[in-house]
Amino acid sequence: MVRKLQVAVSGLGRMGARHALHFLDRTPRAELVAACDPDPKALAWAKQRLEPFGVKIYSDFDEMLKHEGLEAVVVAGITTEHAPQSIRAIDANKHVLCEKPLSTSLEICEGVVEAAKQKPELTVMCGFSRRFDASYRDAASKVESGNIGRVSVIRSQTADKHRDDDYFVQYAKHSGGIFVDANIHDIDLAFWYFGSDSIVKSVTAVGINARLQGLAQYGDVDNGVGIVEFWGGKIAYFYSSRMMAAGQTDTTEIIGTHGKIVVNGNPAQNLVEHHEATGIRRDVPQTYYDRFEQAFVTESNEFTEVILDGKRPPFQLNGAVAALKVGDALQESLRTGKKINFNEIGERIVESKARL
Amino acid sequence: MVRKLQVAVSGLGRMGARHALHFLDRTPRAELVAACDPDPKALAWAKQRLEPFGVKIYSDFDEMLKHEGLEAVVVAGITTEHAPQSIRAIDANKHVLCEKPLSTSLEICEGVVEAAKQKPELTVMCGFSRRFDASYRDAASKVESGNIGRVSVIRSQTADKHRDDDYFVQYAKHSGGIFVDANIHDIDLAFWYFGSDSIVKSVTAVGINARLQGLAQYGDVDNGVGIVEFWGGKIAYFYSSRMMAAGQTDTTEIIGTHGKIVVNGNPAQNLVEHHEATGIRRDVPQTYYDRFEQAFVTESNEFTEVILDGKRPPFQLNGAVAALKVGDALQESLRTGKKINFNEIGERIVESKARL
Amino acid sequence: MVRKLQVAVSGLGRMGARHALHFLDRTPRAELVAACDPDPKALAWAKQRLEPFGVKIYSDFDEMLKHEGLEAVVVAGITTEHAPQSIRAIDANKHVLCEKPLSTSLEICEGVVEAAKQKPELTVMCGFSRRFDASYRDAASKVESGNIGRVSVIRSQTADKHRDDDYFVQYAKHSGGIFVDANIHDIDLAFWYFGSDSIVKSVTAVGINARLQGLAQYGDVDNGVGIVEFWGGKIAYFYSSRMMAAGQTDTTEIIGTHGKIVVNGNPAQNLVEHHEATGIRRDVPQTYYDRFEQAFVTESNEFTEVILDGKRPPFQLNGAVAALKVGDALQESLRTGKKINFNEIGERIVESKARL
Amino acid sequence: MVRKLQVAVSGLGRMGARHALHFLDRTPRAELVAACDPDPKALAWAKQRLEPFGVKIYSDFDEMLKHEGLEAVVVAGITTEHAPQSIRAIDANKHVLCEKPLSTSLEICEGVVEAAKQKPELTVMCGFSRRFDASYRDAASKVESGNIGRVSVIRSQTADKHRDDDYFVQYAKHSGGIFVDANIHDIDLAFWYFGSDSIVKSVTAVGINARLQGLAQYGDVDNGVGIVEFWGGKIAYFYSSRMMAAGQTDTTEIIGTHGKIVVNGNPAQNLVEHHEATGIRRDVPQTYYDRFEQAFVTESNEFTEVILDGKRPPFQLNGAVAALKVGDALQESLRTGKKINFNEIGERIVESKARL
Repeated sequence: MVRKLQVAVSGLGRMGARHALHFLDRTPRAELVAACDPDPKALAWAKQRLEPFGVKIYSDFDEMLKHEGLEAVVVAGITTEHAPQSIRAIDANKHVLCEKPLSTSLEICEGVVEAAKQKPELTVMCGFSRRFDASYRDAASKVESGNIGRVSVIRSQTADKHRDDDYFVQYAKHSGGIFVDANIHDIDLAFWYFGSDSIVKSVTAVGINARLQGLAQYGDVDNGVGIVEFWGGKIAYFYSSRMMAAGQTDTTEIIGTHGKIVVNGNPAQNLVEHHEATGIRRDVPQTYYDRFEQAFVTESNEFTEVILDGKRPPFQLNGAVAALKVGDALQESLRTGKKINFNEIGERIVESKARL
Repeated sequence: MVRKLQVAVSGLGRMGARHALHFLDRTPRAELVAACDPDPKALAWAKQRLEPFGVKIYSDFDEMLKHEGLEAVVVAGITTEHAPQSIRAIDANKHVLCEKPLSTSLEICEGVVEAAKQKPELTVMCGFSRRFDASYRDAASKVESGNIGRVSVIRSQTADKHRDDDYFVQYAKHSGGIFVDANIHDIDLAFWYFGSDSIVKSVTAVGINARLQGLAQYGDVDNGVGIVEFWGGKIAYFYSSRMMAAGQTDTTEIIGTHGKIVVNGNPAQNLVEHHEATGIRRDVPQTYYDRFEQAFVTESNEFTEVILDGKRPPFQLNGAVAALKVGDALQESLRTGKKINFNEIGERIVESKARL
Repeated sequence: MVRKLQVAVSGLGRMGARHALHFLDRTPRAELVAACDPDPKALAWAKQRLEPFGVKIYSDFDEMLKHEGLEAVVVAGITTEHAPQSIRAIDANKHVLCEKPLSTSLEICEGVVEAAKQKPELTVMCGFSRRFDASYRDAASKVESGNIGRVSVIRSQTADKHRDDDYFVQYAKHSGGIFVDANIHDIDLAFWYFGSDSIVKSVTAVGINARLQGLAQYGDVDNGVGIVEFWGGKIAYFYSSRMMAAGQTDTTEIIGTHGKIVVNGNPAQNLVEHHEATGIRRDVPQTYYDRFEQAFVTESNEFTEVILDGKRPPFQLNGAVAALKVGDALQESLRTGKKINFNEIGERIVESKARL
Repeated sequence: MVRKLQVAVSGLGRMGARHALHFLDRTPRAELVAACDPDPKALAWAKQRLEPFGVKIYSDFDEMLKHEGLEAVVVAGITTEHAPQSIRAIDANKHVLCEKPLSTSLEICEGVVEAAKQKPELTVMCGFSRRFDASYRDAASKVESGNIGRVSVIRSQTADKHRDDDYFVQYAKHSGGIFVDANIHDIDLAFWYFGSDSIVKSVTAVGINARLQGLAQYGDVDNGVGIVEFWGGKIAYFYSSRMMAAGQTDTTEIIGTHGKIVVNGNPAQNLVEHHEATGIRRDVPQTYYDRFEQAFVTESNEFTEVILDGKRPPFQLNGAVAALKVGDALQESLRTGKKINFNEIGERIVESKARL
């Protein structure tokens, strides 16, 4: 019989439960053998939905790590546990797929990278879901084909549908801010399409609280715009929002010297258009998961494949650090109102010093 | 000073008034010198809107024909007057631009063509507006370029927005039926893209009264579907409707052996899209004129140019007869429920005869 | 442990192999336990791709039917075996998911329905994949919501991308003709959106060999257009083609008295648009499977769910007979050049009789 | 007879010649009576194309100003003459329609506004063509309807098609830079949709020379990105480019608290789509004039109407100053690499001072 990767999922909240189901039902080469969550509600769900399929349910992460034969762990609980659990899993010689962000702290983030470096035999990936999306990949292959020339400008946005409840406000307590939480994906795309060795030259960000005033107490905004210059004549600019009316509106333009690729310039839930007295209308994906569900499934499958077949991961873990660095700088620029500059080897130029 | 074509418009109803204004304001090489209509309301409008610009207003067509220096007449009154007025204008040696249809009677229609043939020095055109539309012309030039190979199948529809009033029912009294009134444009397109020498092989039509039951009293339908086979392996199929919810939805597909051209696959009033809680929406042209206004203006200008510069008209008058012949056959097929066949020289195959 | 449906797949050609993999990898509640094909090449594939996962490989269908614990069979081999194998599987008390068409012969088709009727405890489904497609289902739910009023006209097409090889010609030997093979899906959609109890009033079809002259020897065409009238004021009209340049172009319009739903009016492979010197371009799905892959997976899962949970199938088996009846009539009309009429209880009106 | 506005056009280069023809042929209530240009080539064109229609041709602007009966002047020559000619025309009591920009110098620009203020009886307009575009106007009316709530973020770009010649480099000598030349339109849109009384809070810009290295010698870039914050929680961000592959790509998003309006999210030359082996393709307007031709014609007509009917102009002259102020700041930020801040009454915050 064919060997299947023995996987466990830690954290069975919204995304964690989805990861668990992706590994249970939609990742043929993996077997979900364990899952854990300290929360009784999540545990109840797991006992009903996962246990009947032979998944062992734990309330304690470290107990789960000892599960016999366990090979890989998906870390998908609360953000503050991402790094500690990833490190413990690495220490226990498990492959790790960690939900983004590794951490909202750069230092902690680097700790995970460091831990992973000690165990080169392990696959440690951070879940940048767009890296697994068919359209973003098609864009990448079109870029690589050279058809659009040298990539020079990237515009990218992560824009969530407005919610009437206080979800975004609650979420802002720990999210690290809209640039770190939402635009982190766009930043990662910039490194993808510009090249992972791109060096940031300057960072500027502004933001407003147009609708969700409650975000202000956490220093967060509901609409942000940022510009990131890279050395070598490359510019990325970003928009993030929590107040889209129609739905999830994540759009990216990759502008080369000889052409342009647009990803999701026309958001649509499916292939249906509705003609009615007020015109022609189409539905739009409502959430991030609506838009990227298949990418998450691809992620599970490729994580599995990379491990089982000893392949190179589709992108490197330290990309998560690079992206967070930029996200952090955007947050700082938002906070201080200042543009932040970096020299050609990526070191921060401290203005006061420069003036001496 | 440059010579301007001296033009008169007969019939100042909805379309006639538009023609008058197109010649008055938007046809630089023509001068609107006269206009006529027997209807007092139309006359009042003309006196207010046209007379101040030096346009002489008549209530009698034949009087107007005698207007000094008059060179060309636009015949745009009620359908039953299209042919008689066109013929009288031709007899009076005026160039003629006649609104479609020349007549709903094939015989009368042929009478106009005959009259025109007697005066080859005159330009006599029938107003198939789509022939002047930039998109249809672009399609024609793409077809001519050979890019789509041999044109083999044409799908074309003329679909009006539903109206809550009884306009369509009143209109049906004299329109000749939906295939003759609406699909006549699509039939003409078939001759354009297949070639004006195409010979009809068979005609079939069906129709329903889905919403406008009142049309039934005049033998008309609010939705019709027809197929026209041409000899030489070409098929055109048509749809017409009076009950579109969103707006005017005239779409054409020109399918060649090696490619396809679509005209107006995505109706849109302008370049605006509206994102709102129910999705993404765009407006649609509400009427035929909304969609084809610029084509009508081009029509006025080219009619003028053909005369002043002695050019060949963009299409021939007898095309109107050919189109009406097909429209008539579609109407007959709708009425009788029978398919109508023609031999390779376009003569009707009479079934009863064939059976003897 | 949770019970999984024990499934076998018969026929491991192109579609059969896909079905096998869908049940192996993407149908969590089913277990692929067996597969069979008489062809050595298919068997070799199965031994390499399926056997390692515990799937027992057979070269004989009847042997496979005896596989211990087998509960359900997917019949996906050559068309002529669809009905016989389905009947034998039913006789052996297996649930059946049969690829479309059950048969190109109406009589044989009815035989399967009859066999299924004898075993009401079995689920016997025919694979109309569009019934499982998210966009067609969304259309259905929008129709059911009443938003577009009473469905009155349906336009639907199945249009394959041109192939340079002789695939379509070879395929035509046994396909039953383009209306039976391709438009059968569109016919089925008409019954879905008009209601499964709709009664055909008339059928007309025409066709040409625009590019694939080789089809003529089998009485088939590469482009077909058909109209199907239903009693009660409903019209469906269809187009099928084997020569689309860009890709699979299956489009459906559902036109109601108060609105219209369009499915796939703008074919697109993904969410990418490419700006280049010649304009803006997007890719199109190349094949039926490119377009409907997810629908096939949904089919596997729902077939499984219907059996395991004792649910009602999403549509009835005799719909396949109804659709084939219409397809057959279209083929006959294509062949004879005649319109075929039916009375209000769906009985054919024989013209010669009617004339006596 | 109806009175027509007596108009002259100064400057018969590319845009000036178009303006002349718009007034000659497409502005029914105006009469083009004179035109001037010092350039012999332009004069030759004018003598051939305009003189036959009774237009008096001048080589000297001041001579033309004395043309008997002249009421209004279109100033469309080289940029450096915009302001001086406008002022002389105002002094001569002529209404003025001045091509944008009034000047690339803020001071000179203010001079024109000052001159106009002295003659309140005159209409003095600056040609922001998008203000006359049907789609931008529809957007404005949708914004005014309140449907999208409070406008909070505007994204807008002016992106020209790449040219293989050195046009853009030559042009850069006097254009004032890409933000002042191209994004000036987008800045004006921001004032339109945010309100003309909006006060700038900060300005940041970056740019690169991705393809047109020759621009660098004039301090210009071929791709620019800028952010303009306004007091009161409003952000506009802009992109400009000279290297679009497909064509003119001017897109604007107006994002409100409750909805979004997109103008030209999907550039298209017309209503045609081309299906071919490489996918589905559409043409894109190649130039600014391709996209905005009708807006320029509307401009001529409304300028005429405002004067003849004593109406209020659709927007105020000092808007041109406000837009230039922002454009200038963007250019400065591009040049210095610094963010520029303004206080709540729009006064520049001088950093060095602040530090004392």
